[in-house]
Amino acid sequence: MKIFYSFEKLNAALNKRRQDKKRIGFVPTMGALHMGHLSLIKQAARENNTVVVSIFVNPAQFGPKEDMKKYPRPLKNDLSLCRRSGVDFIFLPDSKSMYPRPYSTFVNVEGLNEVLCGSVRPGHFRGVATVVAKLLNIVRPDVLYLGQKDAQQAVIIARMINDLNFPVRVKVMPTIRENDGLALSSRNAYLSGKERNDAVVLSKALLLAQTLIDNGQRQADRIISRMKQLISKKRSARIDYAGIVDLENLMPLKKIKPGCLIALAVKIGKTRLIDNVVVNQGRFSKQRKPCPFKYV
Amino acid sequence: MKIFYSFEKLNAALNKRRQDKKRIGFVPTMGALHMGHLSLIKQAARENNTVVVSIFVNPAQFGPKEDMKKYPRPLKNDLSLCRRSGVDFIFLPDSKSMYPRPYSTFVNVEGLNEVLCGSVRPGHFRGVATVVAKLLNIVRPDVLYLGQKDAQQAVIIARMINDLNFPVRVKVMPTIRENDGLALSSRNAYLSGKERNDAVVLSKALLLAQTLIDNGQRQADRIISRMKQLISKKRSARIDYAGIVDLENLMPLKKIKPGCLIALAVKIGKTRLIDNVVVNQGRFSKQRKPCPFKYV
Repeated sequence: MKIFYSFEKLNAALNKRRQDKKRIGFVPTMGALHMGHLSLIKQAARENNTVVVSIFVNPAQFGPKEDMKKYPRPLKNDLSLCRRSGVDFIFLPDSKSMYPRPYSTFVNVEGLNEVLCGSVRPGHFRGVATVVAKLLNIVRPDVLYLGQKDAQQAVIIARMINDLNFPVRVKVMPTIRENDGLALSSRNAYLSGKERNDAVVLSKALLLAQTLIDNGQRQADRIISRMKQLISKKRSARIDYAGIVDLENLMPLKKIKPGCLIALAVKIGKTRLIDNVVVNQGRFSKQRKPCPFKYV
Repeated sequence: MKIFYSFEKLNAALNKRRQDKKRIGFVPTMGALHMGHLSLIKQAARENNTVVVSIFVNPAQFGPKEDMKKYPRPLKNDLSLCRRSGVDFIFLPDSKSMYPRPYSTFVNVEGLNEVLCGSVRPGHFRGVATVVAKLLNIVRPDVLYLGQKDAQQAVIIARMINDLNFPVRVKVMPTIRENDGLALSSRNAYLSGKERNDAVVLSKALLLAQTLIDNGQRQADRIISRMKQLISKKRSARIDYAGIVDLENLMPLKKIKPGCLIALAVKIGKTRLIDNVVVNQGRFSKQRKPCPFKYV
């Protein structure tokens, strides 16, 4: 496994691989790797000859009052996980080289940017789309691997790739969960013991929604209010949003339809967690198949 | 010369050229080609093994009240000019394939977008940056050729390429002029005989600015007011803007400095024309060397 800090050296190494007709799989991350990231990396290793992982805590996607500074950065552990998971190249750029001054260019995926997490984190997805556009130009992978846990992010990036004609395929892999259902997230590390127990309420609410749907409920507002009811029982929980939306345009749906997205953002104490399911995708399936996200 | 209407076929042809280690030069145009475009094409042919020209009247860069519909489209003549100038591949996409519905993604070069032409054509450079990002991803050229006549466009595209790490070099070639100094433009075709004569006042004003600078004038506002005075003598002329700006950030300068940009937009009758010079670049040089645009 080789570690690259500069674009130029990474490029030279990747160009050589490309000349040798090696397929390049790419997993962009902010580090603090967990089994969710590793499932993407392992899938990339199965499907490509060269696996590139970037670790970059992207300032452009954090709001001024968000957790940029305290975001976990266990680099040594991350590198050891990557080494054991079949990563070939690690890209570790710094903010100064990613956003040299003056810096002016941002990618906006209009419409999809402002809903769900975008409504409470203004500018967040502009930062995400921008850094992914940059990383795609630097790495030029054949396949990009994303996690379904960040469903809106995956929808936005897939739309950007389609709209701007980036020559790369996208694979969205299922969310990895703890045994009790909690979706893995680097931010779970912020939770106290009590909060960790309460945090399971997100996946419980999504399971409730699926049960209601299995039993014939099709009214989105009914399902949402039942989810909110459940979550509100936890005193540490404060709901940011609970939405049932079209997976293509992220617009709210009145009636459930196959393939729609049920998405939650809940603050447990001071920690903001998100989770989601795609209806008819199977209940928290443990299969490692790409999820049937439908892109435009 | 081969003509391509679809991304896929163009891509297949270009991939073959890339495998054969051919250098690809790219000239994006809106058609209605003149000697300005041809100077870019010929430079591309000198420096590359494969020259790609796109012809696409990009709806995203026209305002609702602008000349999108009447923009000249002499396709047959354009193709014959390309054929004679050493073009290998012509790319002729349609709006539907470039902006399929739903379409959401736009590239904003913030700050540079809103000044000069951006102040009177809101959204124009968002459309330009977006279509060029798309075309760069489709063609993936080694070198992109742009004309200095659209100086702000060149500055914005160069900044976008730098900011988003597009793996391409930019060459900005000098403006080509009629014998009396009028900068070549596809929009010159809109001018009546009288207007054509008046239109020379743009280049005359720029020459006046250069003469004032040669004689020691360094106050931007003095130079601008002398240019405006000269232009106002033409009854068909209405000034959109006359600016002296830093070539890197396009911010107005109080004092002339080497490499600064003097830019004009003037309506002659109903036709909006632009022109510019870079100070110390030589007076309307006829050399075909790339101009010394300085990018970040």
